[in-house]
Amino acid sequence: MSQKFTILGGGRWGTALASHLSRLGHEVLVYDKNPKVVESLNAGVNPYLESQSLERIASTQDLKEAIDFSQYLVVALPVQAIRSVLEKAEVRGKVIISASKGLEIGTHKRVSQIIEELSQDCQIFCLSGPSFAVEVMKGLPTAVVLAGQDMEQAQRLRELISSPYFRVYLCDDIVGVELGGALKNVIAIACGISDGLGYGHNARAALMTRGLAEMVRIGVQLGAKRDTFYGLSGMGDLFLTASSDLSRNRTFGYLIGQGLSAERALERIGQVVEGYHTVKAVKELSDNLQIYAPISQALYSLLFEGKPLEEVLKDLLLRPSLSPYESL
Amino acid sequence: MSQKFTILGGGRWGTALASHLSRLGHEVLVYDKNPKVVESLNAGVNPYLESQSLERIASTQDLKEAIDFSQYLVVALPVQAIRSVLEKAEVRGKVIISASKGLEIGTHKRVSQIIEELSQDCQIFCLSGPSFAVEVMKGLPTAVVLAGQDMEQAQRLRELISSPYFRVYLCDDIVGVELGGALKNVIAIACGISDGLGYGHNARAALMTRGLAEMVRIGVQLGAKRDTFYGLSGMGDLFLTASSDLSRNRTFGYLIGQGLSAERALERIGQVVEGYHTVKAVKELSDNLQIYAPISQALYSLLFEGKPLEEVLKDLLLRPSLSPYESL
Repeated sequence: MSQKFTILGGGRWGTALASHLSRLGHEVLVYDKNPKVVESLNAGVNPYLESQSLERIASTQDLKEAIDFSQYLVVALPVQAIRSVLEKAEVRGKVIISASKGLEIGTHKRVSQIIEELSQDCQIFCLSGPSFAVEVMKGLPTAVVLAGQDMEQAQRLRELISSPYFRVYLCDDIVGVELGGALKNVIAIACGISDGLGYGHNARAALMTRGLAEMVRIGVQLGAKRDTFYGLSGMGDLFLTASSDLSRNRTFGYLIGQGLSAERALERIGQVVEGYHTVKAVKELSDNLQIYAPISQALYSLLFEGKPLEEVLKDLLLRPSLSPYESL
Repeated sequence: MSQKFTILGGGRWGTALASHLSRLGHEVLVYDKNPKVVESLNAGVNPYLESQSLERIASTQDLKEAIDFSQYLVVALPVQAIRSVLEKAEVRGKVIISASKGLEIGTHKRVSQIIEELSQDCQIFCLSGPSFAVEVMKGLPTAVVLAGQDMEQAQRLRELISSPYFRVYLCDDIVGVELGGALKNVIAIACGISDGLGYGHNARAALMTRGLAEMVRIGVQLGAKRDTFYGLSGMGDLFLTASSDLSRNRTFGYLIGQGLSAERALERIGQVVEGYHTVKAVKELSDNLQIYAPISQALYSLLFEGKPLEEVLKDLLLRPSLSPYESL
């Protein structure tokens, strides 16, 4: 059954989801503040993949128009922008699907928590998992997780948004799914640094393994279910993000490993690097809750305190084990 | 303290371990049946990395000489050759470290079980984890797991074989560590096939995630601890093997995804592809024990029953979910 969907944020991922939903026959309206993106989408040209012509994707800079368009809101904004955009909108009664991955600086809130704070009268879901936007645009096989509390609504949503090539699985642990998506960006930066330094595949695999263990420790302390991190939205997304050139977070780390400063690396990428902000949130969280998070702590000291790369890496890779059994 | 180590098998991994142990100051003797490998090692030339000169690595084709050389035996033979080699040897009283990853066809035994069957008077350990041989040869950072029952002996071994760049962690779940190393090769073949077909990173990450879940299901049924699969010897090794060109198992799958027959792909690689044999063992095991193992079953039907690639992949990637929650 064809539905209307509003996508907030015409970045890569918002555009990929818009293109996917439109291909399924839904009517889609994309909100973005950037007039170039809006113009391009309205002209039926994918701003991130010029070879692709898009159909039926209207776009607007008018937030109210976008919100009024549909009962279903997909939030694909940079996490640090969500509050300021949604503060201006009336989302009461809406079904909101968060597709953004990160934590808010200062509050350390997950996306669903930010939205709940702004309006308690909406239903919130989180869509996450290993999904590079460009591959979803191209219709390549992808499997994701839809998490929320109302499983009947989730089941209906699943029927609306899934296809043989975009498999949607349900999960009732929204805390775990959101944290998986946010925290894996931090680990991906660390893996990028290791790669940038030429440390090789063995070192990266060890870092990923210890990274997943760090994600689990943090997540469980914050109320997530442990097993959620071993699924698509946890290790699946970590696999993807930490091992591919297509990941902005890994690329950011890679450039730092190659000797660039954080500022220069961010400039070079020219798009939001969610993990950069998440590092700060995780550092504060792990300090407050006394969670053992050596990778996040090391990245914080490198990115925000100016600690030299060699020292940070020595701490990370060569630090003495706490015990001979501490393989995670 | 300098010790003597015998390495059975002068393949890539055996040579990498020989080179590592020799760099740590140990006296090493490598047994191999191939005269070219023996000659090359004795000449101080790494048969797999010509740019590298090796020191202090003696090599022999004489099994008895090799066995008599040391109390410590590192088994780095193809799994299907271990029984026939060790049957000819007297290993009573030895400390044996298995560095081979796979299951024996027919018996479905893990390496430590094969060795135990041949001699009950030796101590058996398993060394596993994400470790491409060429990177260990080059001294790049690597973290592995040493598993066994006698933790005091394991601790002594650990002191002998670890270095700042070759971190060794201990684990008391040898079943889980051995199965992780064997089963990940199967999943790596599946990931290679997906890559060979051009399915993209999203599909591969989904396959890896479901693959790890399959490894856990099989492993737990066979007596392993679940958590072992989330460590270096499980997901760490899976990360490594399933995502890199350096992996023979992934490359084997890749060639099949590109349209080669299993026979042609094996020929092209020209070295032992452990996962190819493990598929057969896992298929038989999962049939016998009624374990849900769709990836291994699909690979079996492709590799040994001639089922067409497209059908197998359809079964794997597009098969209807058992439940909307089955994300693993």
